[in-house]
Amino acid sequence: MAGLFITFEGPDGAGKTSVLAQLLPLLKQQAQKQIIETREPGGNPISEAIRRIILDPKNTAMDKRTEALLYAAARRQHIVEKIRPVLAADKIVLCDRFVDSSLAYQGSGRQIGISAVAKMNEFATEQLTPDLTLYLDVPSKLGLTRIAAHRQEQNDRLDQEALSFHQKVRQAYLDLAKSHPDRIKIIDATQALTTVIADCQQMIIRTYPAWFK
Amino acid sequence: MAGLFITFEGPDGAGKTSVLAQLLPLLKQQAQKQIIETREPGGNPISEAIRRIILDPKNTAMDKRTEALLYAAARRQHIVEKIRPVLAADKIVLCDRFVDSSLAYQGSGRQIGISAVAKMNEFATEQLTPDLTLYLDVPSKLGLTRIAAHRQEQNDRLDQEALSFHQKVRQAYLDLAKSHPDRIKIIDATQALTTVIADCQQMIIRTYPAWFK
Repeated sequence: MAGLFITFEGPDGAGKTSVLAQLLPLLKQQAQKQIIETREPGGNPISEAIRRIILDPKNTAMDKRTEALLYAAARRQHIVEKIRPVLAADKIVLCDRFVDSSLAYQGSGRQIGISAVAKMNEFATEQLTPDLTLYLDVPSKLGLTRIAAHRQEQNDRLDQEALSFHQKVRQAYLDLAKSHPDRIKIIDATQALTTVIADCQQMIIRTYPAWFK
Repeated sequence: MAGLFITFEGPDGAGKTSVLAQLLPLLKQQAQKQIIETREPGGNPISEAIRRIILDPKNTAMDKRTEALLYAAARRQHIVEKIRPVLAADKIVLCDRFVDSSLAYQGSGRQIGISAVAKMNEFATEQLTPDLTLYLDVPSKLGLTRIAAHRQEQNDRLDQEALSFHQKVRQAYLDLAKSHPDRIKIIDATQALTTVIADCQQMIIRTYPAWFK
Protein backbone atom coordinates (compact mmCIF):
# COMPACT_ATOMS: atom_id res chain seq x y z
CA MET A 1 0.00 0.00 0.00
CA ALA A 2 1.21 3.49 -0.86
CA GLY A 3 0.72 6.58 1.32
CA LEU A 4 2.35 7.42 4.65
CA PHE A 5 0.87 6.12 7.88
CA ILE A 6 1.98 7.87 11.09
CA THR A 7 0.50 7.07 14.51
CA PHE A 8 0.69 8.86 17.87
CA GLU A 9 0.75 6.85 21.06
CA GLY A 10 1.10 7.48 24.75
CA PRO A 11 -0.44 6.87 28.16
CA ASP A 12 -3.32 9.08 29.33
CA GLY A 13 -2.06 12.55 30.15
CA ALA A 14 0.85 12.47 27.67
CA GLY A 15 -0.75 15.41 25.84
CA LYS A 16 -1.38 13.75 22.47
CA THR A 17 -4.53 15.74 21.79
CA SER A 18 -2.89 19.15 22.42
CA VAL A 19 0.22 18.17 20.48
CA LEU A 20 -1.74 16.94 17.46
CA ALA A 21 -3.97 20.02 17.38
CA GLN A 22 -0.95 22.33 17.00
CA LEU A 23 1.27 19.97 14.99
CA LEU A 24 -1.27 19.39 12.23
CA PRO A 25 -1.28 22.95 10.74
CA LEU A 26 2.54 23.05 10.87
CA LEU A 27 2.85 19.77 8.97
CA LYS A 28 0.14 20.76 6.49
CA GLN A 29 2.20 23.81 5.47
CA GLN A 30 5.15 21.57 4.62
CA ALA A 31 3.50 18.42 3.28
CA GLN A 32 3.75 17.50 -0.42
CA LYS A 33 0.54 15.43 -0.15
CA GLN A 34 -2.77 15.90 1.63
CA ILE A 35 -2.75 15.05 5.37
CA ILE A 36 -5.80 13.40 6.95
CA GLU A 37 -5.94 13.41 10.75
CA THR A 38 -8.03 10.73 12.37
CA ARG A 39 -8.52 8.81 15.60
CA GLU A 40 -10.47 5.70 16.51
CA PRO A 41 -13.44 5.25 16.22
CA GLY A 42 -12.96 7.52 13.19
CA GLY A 43 -16.39 8.99 12.69
CA ASN A 44 -18.10 6.03 11.02
CA PRO A 45 -21.45 4.98 12.54
CA ILE A 46 -20.49 1.32 13.13
CA SER A 47 -17.27 2.08 15.04
CA GLU A 48 -19.05 4.86 16.98
CA ALA A 49 -21.77 2.40 18.03
CA ILE A 50 -19.12 -0.13 19.13
CA ARG A 51 -17.29 2.58 21.08
CA ARG A 52 -20.49 3.51 22.93
CA ILE A 53 -20.73 -0.07 24.23
CA ILE A 54 -17.09 -0.04 25.39
CA LEU A 55 -17.34 3.29 27.22
CA ASP A 56 -20.84 2.87 28.69
CA PRO A 57 -20.25 3.10 32.47
CA LYS A 58 -23.22 0.70 32.95
CA ASN A 59 -21.19 -2.14 31.35
CA THR A 60 -19.19 -2.98 34.47
CA ALA A 61 -19.58 -6.72 33.76
CA MET A 62 -17.52 -6.41 30.56
CA ASP A 63 -14.78 -9.03 30.37
CA LYS A 64 -11.36 -7.71 29.35
CA ARG A 65 -11.21 -9.98 26.28
CA THR A 66 -14.67 -8.78 25.19
CA GLU A 67 -13.33 -5.22 25.46
CA ALA A 68 -10.21 -6.06 23.41
CA LEU A 69 -12.35 -7.70 20.69
CA LEU A 70 -14.63 -4.65 20.56
CA TYR A 71 -11.65 -2.29 20.20
CA ALA A 72 -10.37 -4.50 17.36
CA ALA A 73 -13.80 -4.50 15.68
CA ALA A 74 -14.02 -0.68 15.83
CA ARG A 75 -10.42 -0.48 14.54
CA ARG A 76 -11.19 -2.81 11.63
CA GLN A 77 -14.11 -0.69 10.46
CA HIS A 78 -12.03 2.51 10.83
CA ILE A 79 -9.27 0.94 8.71
CA VAL A 80 -11.67 -0.15 5.97
CA GLU A 81 -13.75 3.03 5.81
CA LYS A 82 -11.02 5.63 6.33
CA ILE A 83 -7.34 4.68 6.76
CA ARG A 84 -6.99 2.26 3.84
CA PRO A 85 -8.73 4.51 1.25
CA VAL A 86 -6.57 7.52 2.26
CA LEU A 87 -3.34 5.48 2.03
CA ALA A 88 -4.46 3.93 -1.27
CA ALA A 89 -4.83 7.50 -2.62
CA ASP A 90 -1.15 8.01 -1.66
CA LYS A 91 -1.98 10.58 1.04
CA ILE A 92 -0.70 10.97 4.61
CA VAL A 93 -2.64 9.58 7.61
CA LEU A 94 -1.93 10.92 11.10
CA CYS A 95 -3.75 8.61 13.53
CA ASP A 96 -4.21 9.24 17.24
CA ARG A 97 -3.75 5.71 18.71
CA PHE A 98 -3.69 2.37 16.85
CA VAL A 99 -2.79 -1.26 17.66
CA ASP A 100 0.01 -0.28 20.08
CA SER A 101 -2.67 1.20 22.37
CA SER A 102 -4.40 -2.19 22.58
CA LEU A 103 -1.08 -3.93 23.27
CA ALA A 104 -0.29 -1.46 26.08
CA TYR A 105 -3.79 -1.07 27.58
CA GLN A 106 -5.40 -4.49 27.07
CA GLY A 107 -2.28 -6.64 26.65
CA SER A 108 -0.28 -5.22 29.54
CA GLY A 109 -2.56 -2.92 31.59
CA ARG A 110 -5.40 -5.43 31.74
CA GLN A 111 -2.91 -8.34 31.69
CA ILE A 112 -4.38 -10.34 28.81
CA GLY A 113 -0.85 -10.70 27.41
CA ILE A 114 0.71 -8.62 24.65
CA SER A 115 1.27 -11.52 22.25
CA ALA A 116 -2.35 -12.75 22.46
CA VAL A 117 -3.71 -9.23 21.83
CA ALA A 118 -1.21 -8.72 18.98
CA LYS A 119 -2.23 -11.95 17.24
CA MET A 120 -5.95 -11.18 17.57
CA ASN A 121 -5.41 -7.67 16.18
CA GLU A 122 -3.72 -9.11 13.08
CA PHE A 123 -7.17 -10.41 12.16
CA ALA A 124 -8.39 -6.79 12.25
CA THR A 125 -5.41 -5.12 10.52
CA GLU A 126 -4.34 -7.78 8.00
CA GLN A 127 -0.75 -6.66 8.68
CA LEU A 128 -1.40 -2.93 8.16
CA THR A 129 1.39 -1.40 10.32
CA PRO A 130 2.27 2.28 10.79
CA ASP A 131 5.35 3.51 8.93
CA LEU A 132 6.24 5.66 11.94
CA THR A 133 4.92 5.84 15.50
CA LEU A 134 5.65 8.77 17.81
CA TYR A 135 5.37 7.60 21.41
CA LEU A 136 4.82 10.53 23.79
CA ASP A 137 6.36 9.43 27.07
CA VAL A 138 5.47 10.76 30.53
CA PRO A 139 5.96 9.22 33.97
CA SER A 140 2.64 7.80 35.19
CA LYS A 141 2.22 10.18 38.13
CA LEU A 142 2.66 13.24 35.91
CA GLY A 143 0.23 11.80 33.37
CA LEU A 144 -2.41 11.19 36.02
CA THR A 145 -1.91 14.68 37.50
CA ARG A 146 -2.49 16.18 34.04
CA ILE A 147 -5.67 14.11 33.58
CA ALA A 148 -7.01 15.30 36.94
CA ALA A 149 -6.31 18.91 36.00
CA HIS A 150 -7.59 18.91 32.41
CA ARG A 151 -10.41 16.39 32.25
CA GLN A 152 -12.23 16.76 35.55
CA GLU A 153 -15.63 16.45 33.90
CA GLN A 154 -14.86 13.14 32.20
CA ASN A 155 -15.41 9.94 34.11
CA ASP A 156 -15.31 7.01 31.73
CA ARG A 157 -14.21 3.57 32.87
CA LEU A 158 -10.57 3.84 31.83
CA ASP A 159 -9.98 7.02 33.84
CA GLN A 160 -11.05 5.23 37.02
CA GLU A 161 -8.09 2.87 36.85
CA ALA A 162 -5.32 3.11 39.38
CA LEU A 163 -1.72 4.27 39.14
CA SER A 164 -0.40 0.70 38.85
CA PHE A 165 -2.49 0.23 35.72
CA HIS A 166 -0.96 3.33 34.15
CA GLN A 167 2.52 2.18 35.09
CA LYS A 168 1.96 -1.16 33.34
CA VAL A 169 0.75 0.72 30.26
CA ARG A 170 3.81 2.97 30.20
CA GLN A 171 6.23 0.08 30.67
CA ALA A 172 4.60 -1.79 27.79
CA TYR A 173 5.04 1.24 25.51
CA LEU A 174 8.72 1.51 26.50
CA ASP A 175 9.20 -2.22 25.83
CA LEU A 176 7.47 -1.92 22.44
CA ALA A 177 9.73 1.01 21.52
CA LYS A 178 12.74 -1.11 22.43
CA SER A 179 11.50 -4.03 20.29
CA HIS A 180 10.65 -1.82 17.28
CA PRO A 181 13.32 0.90 17.31
CA ASP A 182 12.96 1.64 13.58
CA ARG A 183 9.23 2.25 13.76
CA ILE A 184 8.58 3.62 17.29
CA LYS A 185 10.35 6.85 18.31
CA ILE A 186 10.19 8.07 21.90
CA ILE A 187 9.33 11.76 22.39
CA ASP A 188 9.94 13.25 25.87
CA ALA A 189 6.48 14.63 26.68
CA THR A 190 7.50 16.07 30.06
CA GLN A 191 8.95 19.05 28.14
CA ALA A 192 7.08 22.29 27.39
CA LEU A 193 4.28 21.77 24.84
CA THR A 194 6.05 23.83 22.13
CA THR A 195 9.19 21.72 22.53
CA VAL A 196 7.22 18.47 22.31
CA ILE A 197 5.52 19.74 19.13
CA ALA A 198 8.88 20.79 17.63
CA ASP A 199 10.38 17.36 18.45
CA CYS A 200 7.48 15.59 16.74
CA GLN A 201 7.67 17.86 13.70
CA GLN A 202 11.42 17.35 13.30
CA MET A 203 11.19 13.59 13.76
CA ILE A 204 8.55 13.28 11.03
CA ILE A 205 10.27 15.60 8.55
CA ARG A 206 13.72 14.11 9.09
CA THR A 207 12.38 10.58 8.68
CA TYR A 208 10.40 11.38 5.52
CA PRO A 209 12.20 14.30 3.80
CA ALA A 210 10.67 13.47 0.40
CA TRP A 211 7.14 13.94 1.78
CA PHE A 212 7.72 17.41 3.28
CA LYS A 213 9.33 20.50 1.69
CA MET B 1 -13.43 -27.61 33.38
CA ALA B 2 -16.12 -30.02 34.53
CA GLY B 3 -19.70 -30.09 33.22
CA LEU B 4 -20.95 -31.24 29.83
CA PHE B 5 -20.97 -28.81 26.89
CA ILE B 6 -23.16 -29.78 23.91
CA THR B 7 -23.70 -27.49 20.91
CA PHE B 8 -26.19 -27.58 18.04
CA GLU B 9 -25.15 -26.38 14.62
CA GLY B 10 -26.61 -26.20 11.17
CA PRO B 11 -27.33 -23.93 8.24
CA ASP B 12 -30.43 -21.72 8.30
CA GLY B 13 -33.56 -23.82 7.87
CA ALA B 14 -32.09 -26.96 9.44
CA GLY B 15 -34.74 -26.76 12.16
CA LYS B 16 -32.47 -26.30 15.19
CA THR B 17 -34.97 -24.13 17.04
CA SER B 18 -37.87 -26.59 16.67
CA VAL B 19 -35.66 -29.57 17.51
CA LEU B 20 -34.21 -27.94 20.62
CA ALA B 21 -37.64 -26.84 21.90
CA GLN B 22 -38.91 -30.44 21.92
CA LEU B 23 -35.62 -32.16 22.76
CA LEU B 24 -35.00 -30.16 25.93
CA PRO B 25 -37.93 -31.54 28.03
CA LEU B 26 -37.07 -35.10 26.93
CA LEU B 27 -33.43 -34.73 28.00
CA LYS B 28 -34.41 -32.99 31.25
CA GLN B 29 -36.44 -36.08 32.26
CA GLN B 30 -33.39 -38.29 31.85
CA ALA B 31 -30.53 -36.01 32.94
CA GLN B 32 -28.64 -36.68 36.18
CA LYS B 33 -27.61 -32.99 36.37
CA GLN B 34 -29.38 -29.72 35.65
CA ILE B 35 -29.54 -28.74 31.95
CA ILE B 36 -29.21 -25.09 30.95
CA GLU B 37 -30.28 -24.23 27.39
CA THR B 38 -28.74 -21.12 25.88
CA ARG B 39 -27.92 -19.43 22.59
CA GLU B 40 -25.78 -16.48 21.63
CA PRO B 41 -26.07 -13.64 22.60
CA GLY B 42 -27.25 -15.38 25.78
CA GLY B 43 -29.38 -12.73 27.43
CA ASN B 44 -26.62 -10.54 28.89
CA PRO B 45 -26.90 -6.82 28.13
CA ILE B 46 -23.40 -6.45 26.61
CA SER B 47 -23.78 -9.31 24.11
CA GLU B 48 -27.33 -8.14 23.28
CA ALA B 49 -26.02 -4.64 22.52
CA ILE B 50 -23.28 -6.11 20.29
CA ARG B 51 -25.84 -8.28 18.50
CA ARG B 52 -28.02 -5.24 17.77
CA ILE B 53 -25.09 -3.63 15.91
CA ILE B 54 -24.48 -6.82 13.87
CA LEU B 55 -28.12 -7.27 12.83
CA ASP B 56 -29.03 -3.59 12.28
CA PRO B 57 -30.08 -3.49 8.59
CA LYS B 58 -28.75 0.11 8.44
CA ASN B 59 -25.17 -1.18 8.89
CA THR B 60 -24.70 -2.19 5.25
CA ALA B 61 -21.12 -0.80 5.30
CA MET B 62 -20.05 -3.41 7.86
CA ASP B 63 -16.84 -5.16 6.81
CA LYS B 64 -16.92 -8.96 7.11
CA ARG B 65 -13.98 -8.98 9.55
CA THR B 66 -15.69 -6.36 11.72
CA GLU B 67 -18.71 -8.66 11.80
CA ALA B 68 -16.60 -11.69 12.76
CA LEU B 69 -14.91 -9.72 15.58
CA LEU B 70 -18.30 -8.59 16.90
CA TYR B 71 -19.62 -12.17 16.92
CA ALA B 72 -16.49 -13.22 18.83
CA ALA B 73 -16.95 -10.35 21.33
CA ALA B 74 -20.59 -11.30 21.98
CA ARG B 75 -19.51 -14.95 22.28
CA ARG B 76 -16.79 -14.09 24.79
CA GLN B 77 -19.20 -12.27 27.07
CA HIS B 78 -21.73 -15.13 26.79
CA ILE B 79 -19.00 -17.62 27.77
CA VAL B 80 -17.90 -15.57 30.79
CA GLU B 81 -21.34 -14.66 32.09
CA LYS B 82 -23.19 -17.92 31.38
CA ILE B 83 -21.47 -20.95 29.83
CA ARG B 84 -18.36 -21.10 32.03
CA PRO B 85 -20.20 -20.67 35.36
CA VAL B 86 -22.70 -23.45 34.43
CA LEU B 87 -19.92 -25.85 33.41
CA ALA B 88 -17.92 -24.96 36.51
CA ALA B 89 -20.97 -26.00 38.57
CA ASP B 90 -20.74 -29.39 36.81
CA LYS B 91 -24.06 -28.90 34.99
CA ILE B 92 -25.02 -29.51 31.34
CA VAL B 93 -25.03 -26.70 28.75
CA LEU B 94 -27.00 -27.10 25.52
CA CYS B 95 -25.97 -24.22 23.28
CA ASP B 96 -27.65 -23.27 19.99
CA ARG B 97 -24.63 -22.29 17.81
CA PHE B 98 -21.03 -21.68 18.90
CA VAL B 99 -17.62 -21.22 17.19
CA ASP B 100 -18.45 -23.66 14.36
CA SER B 101 -21.11 -21.18 13.18
CA SER B 102 -18.46 -18.48 12.78
CA LEU B 103 -16.18 -20.89 10.91
CA ALA B 104 -19.00 -21.85 8.53
CA TYR B 105 -20.66 -18.43 8.10
CA GLN B 106 -17.77 -15.95 8.35
CA GLY B 107 -14.85 -18.25 7.51
CA SER B 108 -16.42 -20.02 4.53
CA GLY B 109 -19.68 -18.22 3.62
CA ARG B 110 -18.12 -14.76 3.73
CA GLN B 111 -14.75 -16.18 2.57
CA ILE B 112 -12.52 -14.73 5.30
CA GLY B 113 -10.92 -18.18 5.61
CA ILE B 114 -11.72 -20.82 8.22
CA SER B 115 -8.24 -20.88 9.78
CA ALA B 116 -8.10 -17.08 10.30
CA VAL B 117 -11.55 -17.06 11.93
CA ALA B 118 -10.63 -20.08 14.07
CA LYS B 119 -7.44 -18.46 15.35
CA MET B 120 -9.20 -15.19 16.16
CA ASN B 121 -11.95 -17.06 18.02
CA GLU B 122 -9.37 -18.78 20.22
CA PHE B 123 -8.81 -15.34 21.76
CA ALA B 124 -12.51 -15.33 22.69
CA THR B 125 -12.83 -18.94 23.87
CA GLU B 126 -9.43 -19.60 25.45
CA GLN B 127 -9.73 -23.17 24.08
CA LEU B 128 -13.23 -23.84 25.49
CA THR B 129 -14.49 -26.47 23.01
CA PRO B 130 -17.81 -28.35 23.04
CA ASP B 131 -17.67 -31.96 24.24
CA LEU B 132 -20.23 -32.88 21.58
CA THR B 133 -21.67 -31.01 18.59
CA LEU B 134 -24.80 -32.17 16.78
CA TYR B 135 -24.74 -30.85 13.23
CA LEU B 136 -28.24 -30.80 11.69
CA ASP B 137 -27.67 -31.25 7.98
CA VAL B 138 -30.05 -30.18 5.21
CA PRO B 139 -29.39 -29.49 1.53
CA SER B 140 -29.25 -25.72 0.97
CA LYS B 141 -32.34 -25.53 -1.25
CA LEU B 142 -34.48 -27.33 1.32
CA GLY B 143 -33.10 -25.08 4.08
CA LEU B 144 -33.93 -21.93 2.14
CA THR B 145 -37.43 -23.22 1.29
CA ARG B 146 -38.06 -23.83 4.99
CA ILE B 147 -36.86 -20.31 5.86
CA ALA B 148 -39.18 -18.79 3.26
CA ALA B 149 -42.12 -20.77 4.66
CA HIS B 150 -41.50 -20.27 8.39
CA ARG B 151 -39.85 -16.88 8.79
CA GLN B 152 -41.54 -14.67 6.23
CA GLU B 153 -41.69 -11.73 8.63
CA GLN B 154 -37.96 -11.76 9.41
CA ASN B 155 -35.65 -9.87 7.10
CA ASP B 156 -32.25 -9.51 8.78
CA ARG B 157 -29.09 -9.20 6.74
CA LEU B 158 -28.11 -12.87 6.82
CA ASP B 159 -31.43 -14.06 5.38
CA GLN B 160 -30.90 -11.89 2.31
CA GLU B 161 -27.88 -13.92 1.24
CA ALA B 162 -28.05 -16.06 -1.85
CA LEU B 163 -28.12 -19.82 -2.35
CA SER B 164 -24.39 -19.98 -3.10
CA PHE B 165 -23.65 -18.48 0.34
CA HIS B 166 -25.74 -21.18 2.02
CA GLN B 167 -24.02 -23.87 -0.01
CA LYS B 168 -20.59 -22.64 1.15
CA VAL B 169 -21.85 -22.70 4.74
CA ARG B 170 -23.14 -26.25 4.43
CA GLN B 171 -19.96 -27.52 2.77
CA ALA B 172 -17.88 -25.98 5.58
CA TYR B 173 -19.98 -27.76 8.20
CA LEU B 174 -19.56 -31.08 6.36
CA ASP B 175 -15.78 -30.50 6.13
CA LEU B 176 -15.60 -29.62 9.86
CA ALA B 177 -17.52 -32.82 10.69
CA LYS B 178 -15.01 -34.80 8.63
CA SER B 179 -12.04 -33.14 10.42
CA HIS B 180 -13.53 -33.60 13.91
CA PRO B 181 -15.38 -36.94 13.71
CA ASP B 182 -15.17 -37.56 17.47
CA ARG B 183 -16.76 -34.24 18.38
CA ILE B 184 -19.13 -33.39 15.51
CA LYS B 185 -21.93 -35.85 14.70
CA ILE B 186 -24.06 -35.39 11.59
CA ILE B 187 -27.84 -35.66 12.06
CA ASP B 188 -29.98 -36.02 8.92
CA ALA B 189 -32.36 -33.07 9.30
CA THR B 190 -34.34 -33.82 6.14
CA GLN B 191 -36.22 -36.46 8.16
CA ALA B 192 -39.53 -35.90 9.98
CA LEU B 193 -39.10 -33.63 13.02
CA THR B 194 -39.87 -36.43 15.52
CA THR B 195 -37.19 -38.62 13.90
CA VAL B 196 -34.60 -35.80 14.01
CA ILE B 197 -35.39 -35.24 17.71
CA ALA B 198 -35.11 -38.97 18.44
CA ASP B 199 -31.75 -39.15 16.60
CA CYS B 200 -30.39 -36.21 18.64
CA GLN B 201 -31.66 -37.68 21.90
CA GLN B 202 -30.12 -41.09 21.18
CA MET B 203 -26.80 -39.60 20.08
CA ILE B 204 -26.46 -37.60 23.31
CA ILE B 205 -27.55 -40.39 25.66
CA ARG B 206 -25.42 -43.04 23.93
CA THR B 207 -22.36 -40.77 23.99
CA TYR B 208 -22.79 -39.81 27.67
CA PRO B 209 -24.59 -42.69 29.36
CA ALA B 210 -23.32 -41.67 32.81
CA TRP B 211 -25.04 -38.27 32.53
CA PHE B 212 -28.51 -39.62 31.65
CA LYS B 213 -30.54 -42.39 33.31
